[in-house]
Amino acid sequence: MALDFSFTPEQEAFRQYVRDFANREIKPYVREWDEVEQLPTRGIYKKMGDAGLLGLSAPKHLGGQERCYVDLGIAMEELARVDTSCAIIFSVNNTMPALVPGWGDDVVKAVFRGEKLLSIATSEEDAGSDVSNIQTRAEVIDGQFVITGKKIHVSLMPGAHYMGVTAKVFGPDGRGKITFIKVPSDAPGVSCEHMPEMGARGHQLAIVHFDKVRVPATDVLGGKGDGKRVMYARWGVSRCLSALNGLGAAQQVLDDTIEFVRKKNVYGRPIGMYQAISFPIIEHYTKVEACRLMAYKGLWMSDVGENPQKQAGMAKWNGVTTSIDAIAACLQMYGAAGYLKDLGVERRLRDVMALLFTGGTINIMKIIVVQELLGKAFAGLRESGGAA
Amino acid sequence: MALDFSFTPEQEAFRQYVRDFANREIKPYVREWDEVEQLPTRGIYKKMGDAGLLGLSAPKHLGGQERCYVDLGIAMEELARVDTSCAIIFSVNNTMPALVPGWGDDVVKAVFRGEKLLSIATSEEDAGSDVSNIQTRAEVIDGQFVITGKKIHVSLMPGAHYMGVTAKVFGPDGRGKITFIKVPSDAPGVSCEHMPEMGARGHQLAIVHFDKVRVPATDVLGGKGDGKRVMYARWGVSRCLSALNGLGAAQQVLDDTIEFVRKKNVYGRPIGMYQAISFPIIEHYTKVEACRLMAYKGLWMSDVGENPQKQAGMAKWNGVTTSIDAIAACLQMYGAAGYLKDLGVERRLRDVMALLFTGGTINIMKIIVVQELLGKAFAGLRESGGAA
Amino acid sequence: MALDFSFTPEQEAFRQYVRDFANREIKPYVREWDEVEQLPTRGIYKKMGDAGLLGLSAPKHLGGQERCYVDLGIAMEELARVDTSCAIIFSVNNTMPALVPGWGDDVVKAVFRGEKLLSIATSEEDAGSDVSNIQTRAEVIDGQFVITGKKIHVSLMPGAHYMGVTAKVFGPDGRGKITFIKVPSDAPGVSCEHMPEMGARGHQLAIVHFDKVRVPATDVLGGKGDGKRVMYARWGVSRCLSALNGLGAAQQVLDDTIEFVRKKNVYGRPIGMYQAISFPIIEHYTKVEACRLMAYKGLWMSDVGENPQKQAGMAKWNGVTTSIDAIAACLQMYGAAGYLKDLGVERRLRDVMALLFTGGTINIMKIIVVQELLGKAFAGLRESGGAA
Amino acid sequence: MALDFSFTPEQEAFRQYVRDFANREIKPYVREWDEVEQLPTRGIYKKMGDAGLLGLSAPKHLGGQERCYVDLGIAMEELARVDTSCAIIFSVNNTMPALVPGWGDDVVKAVFRGEKLLSIATSEEDAGSDVSNIQTRAEVIDGQFVITGKKIHVSLMPGAHYMGVTAKVFGPDGRGKITFIKVPSDAPGVSCEHMPEMGARGHQLAIVHFDKVRVPATDVLGGKGDGKRVMYARWGVSRCLSALNGLGAAQQVLDDTIEFVRKKNVYGRPIGMYQAISFPIIEHYTKVEACRLMAYKGLWMSDVGENPQKQAGMAKWNGVTTSIDAIAACLQMYGAAGYLKDLGVERRLRDVMALLFTGGTINIMKIIVVQELLGKAFAGLRESGGAA
Repeated sequence: MALDFSFTPEQEAFRQYVRDFANREIKPYVREWDEVEQLPTRGIYKKMGDAGLLGLSAPKHLGGQERCYVDLGIAMEELARVDTSCAIIFSVNNTMPALVPGWGDDVVKAVFRGEKLLSIATSEEDAGSDVSNIQTRAEVIDGQFVITGKKIHVSLMPGAHYMGVTAKVFGPDGRGKITFIKVPSDAPGVSCEHMPEMGARGHQLAIVHFDKVRVPATDVLGGKGDGKRVMYARWGVSRCLSALNGLGAAQQVLDDTIEFVRKKNVYGRPIGMYQAISFPIIEHYTKVEACRLMAYKGLWMSDVGENPQKQAGMAKWNGVTTSIDAIAACLQMYGAAGYLKDLGVERRLRDVMALLFTGGTINIMKIIVVQELLGKAFAGLRESGGAA
Repeated sequence: MALDFSFTPEQEAFRQYVRDFANREIKPYVREWDEVEQLPTRGIYKKMGDAGLLGLSAPKHLGGQERCYVDLGIAMEELARVDTSCAIIFSVNNTMPALVPGWGDDVVKAVFRGEKLLSIATSEEDAGSDVSNIQTRAEVIDGQFVITGKKIHVSLMPGAHYMGVTAKVFGPDGRGKITFIKVPSDAPGVSCEHMPEMGARGHQLAIVHFDKVRVPATDVLGGKGDGKRVMYARWGVSRCLSALNGLGAAQQVLDDTIEFVRKKNVYGRPIGMYQAISFPIIEHYTKVEACRLMAYKGLWMSDVGENPQKQAGMAKWNGVTTSIDAIAACLQMYGAAGYLKDLGVERRLRDVMALLFTGGTINIMKIIVVQELLGKAFAGLRESGGAA
Repeated sequence: MALDFSFTPEQEAFRQYVRDFANREIKPYVREWDEVEQLPTRGIYKKMGDAGLLGLSAPKHLGGQERCYVDLGIAMEELARVDTSCAIIFSVNNTMPALVPGWGDDVVKAVFRGEKLLSIATSEEDAGSDVSNIQTRAEVIDGQFVITGKKIHVSLMPGAHYMGVTAKVFGPDGRGKITFIKVPSDAPGVSCEHMPEMGARGHQLAIVHFDKVRVPATDVLGGKGDGKRVMYARWGVSRCLSALNGLGAAQQVLDDTIEFVRKKNVYGRPIGMYQAISFPIIEHYTKVEACRLMAYKGLWMSDVGENPQKQAGMAKWNGVTTSIDAIAACLQMYGAAGYLKDLGVERRLRDVMALLFTGGTINIMKIIVVQELLGKAFAGLRESGGAA
Repeated sequence: MALDFSFTPEQEAFRQYVRDFANREIKPYVREWDEVEQLPTRGIYKKMGDAGLLGLSAPKHLGGQERCYVDLGIAMEELARVDTSCAIIFSVNNTMPALVPGWGDDVVKAVFRGEKLLSIATSEEDAGSDVSNIQTRAEVIDGQFVITGKKIHVSLMPGAHYMGVTAKVFGPDGRGKITFIKVPSDAPGVSCEHMPEMGARGHQLAIVHFDKVRVPATDVLGGKGDGKRVMYARWGVSRCLSALNGLGAAQQVLDDTIEFVRKKNVYGRPIGMYQAISFPIIEHYTKVEACRLMAYKGLWMSDVGENPQKQAGMAKWNGVTTSIDAIAACLQMYGAAGYLKDLGVERRLRDVMALLFTGGTINIMKIIVVQELLGKAFAGLRESGGAA
């Protein structure tokens, strides 16, 4: 092994393949999806499945492609260039089945074919980043979990077919263990309320109520009682993907803006000739490129078996905030047109801001890096000083 | 005269009066107005007129209050705490009739009573900041202007009763002079297309087409041929109001966020106890307060007859960007809730970003300050280097 | 009272008077003082005293001028335009005798004549911002304090004639009270070590050792046992002065840089015509101006009897960091010349960075503002989370 | 080839070897060199040569090691952790002889043995970034260049044995071509004046006067008349090294600061437990790491033969400014101790700021990236808008 910043020819071809797919199947509908505020229509998941874009890193016997995580990153970037919501859905439905055991082979295969969607239901009113405070309970009665509680910010609902739901299951010792349970979304007692959001509306958020929802007590994701560990496991990869979700969008907006400022004339010359335009562009371009390397390094570390926690935490907080800054700066360069829906840049800004929250806030990412760099005692969660 | 940072008791009472008005008449409907994307309903202008909030700085014989510009700022801040669009409308309909001569006393009085609305139609596809490049023409035929052209980003249209329209009128010497012409919006040949925007939707933008629209050649605002000078004249005040529009919103969001972080518990303590929360709050609070002083200084300079160009340019660029940064930071402190429509912070962010463009972009403000501080030759518009 | 951003003609004349003094008596020697790393020579204090620049806000019967704190700010700005160290000395020797009782009328009068210098010795190795942790002890023996301990970062030593020294005096109940004691610097048992610093070298820091130093037990500054309260009292004013110390320097550097970029040609035109130069200049100029208003507001609040804690905390953290940023940006505009000693800008940067620490760090300022804005429980000092 | 973020075991060993060398031979003397403001003493170049640290990327027949540019980066980082000046000298004396033809094999071999030093003399009063404006002339008389002119910011002088001097040589057509000429520094007519600087004092700057200095007209570096092309050639590598010079220093300061904040107690707990400390640390750490990847990518591109101009420009502007910001933030975390010479952090800040200017300013780097990204017409040098 030695430093190498190139992708293989096969990877470059794969990138082009995903780019073509995204431009053909997704791009024409992104404004529509933003307006209807619901899950992408037009059979987009089935098309993703047919195109082999789901199960990218999963084993072949489950219908996966056994690709490396770097390849996941490549696909993520290309989808993100076109739509943040589809890219979130791509990320969840690639990493959840592949990295979290317990969904069942049939479910996993169906997901990879683009026929079923998975969702995670973990946040609660008073338990966002602070996972251990959750109020949702699962009683064990007659070999079944009977789940009661309320989850918020549940993505892809209504619409997803199975949810991974965190609940406290109390053992004989009276201590509750957070358990990650597979729940069919059509189970009796499940109901949904839409939570309208600023952007990324295709990934759609809901409040999901669980009113004595019964599922087999064996339907535990990752093994009963270690739901927390399992949730942590997939985060290295998904945080890097989150960063690339933002960075892909930012790169596309930068590319478009460069085209625009090279052509748009004000006071008799292209506005790209004014340093108040060209300098911010290259500054944001530089930072986006630096963040890309960070994200790919995190994926590569996951591929070669190194612990990616610190790298992934750094990649995500910096990647997401850098992307938002870049897009916000580009928006301004279009003048008032940047503020109008027609151009679409304002939508990209609204969309990418979703990444500030999905899968852990920026402050949580920073706390993780503090933990890895200074030590656990300095991360200061419950005991001494953390952040929301 | 000597340094004094206090408002008079009468001004404090006026502030409270406007705050009560805004909370009672505007606040309940802001989400509705955001969703319908059109001019505020429920007779809000009439109520403003009845409450004496229009014509604040205008002479009494026109139905005005003869208040100082600082008082305009006070009202602006309080309206802006509740709604950016109403605050824009307030600004336009206070400063346009009062600072631009030529609307006619009847029109002006009707505006101040809240019965008529004014609008300005100056931007074109290839003439935003670069005013002199406009393509709209007005031929003088039989004592009438015959106007043909297309304006974009026209606020309050459809809905406003009169527009101030910039057009090139060609004199006998063949040289075109930019003239600012009063055009009734129901004149034959006027037509509108809605331009959906990111936020501040109540102030509503449109493309307005002028197809051989005829108005009396005497209906010139500010005197034929010096439309440009007239437009510049009202900018000192309106730029400071623009800054306070953003700052009022930012202050309200900061106040709400402070309440929230004092109460919301994460990991067993109010999140306001974490420096990752409290430090950004006070940093933004400090900067917002500094920008307020800048804006009020600009209004005070206008009141005492000093040239406010440099001060107003500084107040606006810094005030608007500082407000956006503050609101964006607060949004994150709510976690994912900040991203949802229910809370309203995401709307405030979308709204306030309108101020990046209305009445001159940030880059134009900076160019104005360069011009005042380094000299005209350094502002580098046509000749040497400016910005969009 | 009503908003007024003007200085009186008398104040403008005073500003000019101080500016002339600074240019004549201080400016020629600032590089020399930077190089020798010791207290300003050439009888500069005596000249300040003779010029009536000491005791500005003190009562006339003590030789003061009974000026308002705003006037102190004016003088501070003008001195700071020329030299940070002299401005620090000016601040200490104006505010310490005037705001802290107990030095004795003779000492105070001598300070105001520029014949004696005062210094404060409060910081210790493990007690900087955390005042209550001090190790210096004063035993009461035979009507005398017998002081033993070690202070660091003591400014103006050796050279100052009297020090205000914080020490713990233990009462009969065994509880130590922090007491602020007047100590002549030539008392037996006092010894000094020079602490070479990055800049502001004329204000000179030392380690001062107190080896059983005896002073009358009546020589308490501000009354025995309430040294802490007394120290806090003068901070509102001195923090605003600290901000203006930075801002005066930044303003001078900005003014000089504007002159430079208007004249210096690169690629055939003045570099001020490039937006990569002109935009940062006006951005920093704007922020410096905003911070000035904040600092003057804090002084005005002190003049009219309002509690200036929050305002002064905001003024200082923002004023000092803004000044440093402005100077650092200007330094770069000179190209490599900015990095050379000859130009003097690098010295201004080094100098002004002293203000990050003198009289409380930036983080301490922010904690104070958190305390005022969110509440004491949120400032999180000992109990829950503060900062160095 | 495929993405790989690892160094080979041999590279890791080399890194440790250089680190040990730097700690043993350089670290003990850095404060001394800062104070005497002249070229490093104690035979440091000879030791570098003996240790095989010069000529790293040069051919073996010239005494080089034939290492890749990535290895140069590794050595640079490790030297930079300890001293910026030695790292600059390392960079110049590795890249100049290896990348610029014409010094002569004997000179090159002597440089690689650490027995001779090279220097470049290209800047003039009115020709810094704007190379083509140089005033230094070389007349060709009797097969000799007769050089007259004045260069500023010449590093390593007095002390270096040969200088690369840019001069205009006028051909028969009357057109001047910038030629890069080898000049022995002891040639008659060469004289020096010291230019004291803010930091990086060991790399020492001088004004060098050339008064009819005669050298053989064959002593052209890179071939007569294409000096400009030659100077550009080595910049890809040296810009990435410049970035790593800053980043190595920043990384060392961050590492030290992390150790410090883990141990230093304020208010009864390590200050690293306060988020106002820990968050900025990990934010700067993240950005430094991102910039490192950018710099190594630039070196890798040079190794594999890709054009590194854009990458190197991005790496340098971002790397250098990120390093300065990181060190400035760390400095503050030490409280007033950070401002004192003893700790050494203030020296690192002063040192690293040299990199804002050596080998092209930050603005020039940005212009280069604009040129690569938007196109040459948008870089706006002479014609339309550039920067100093």
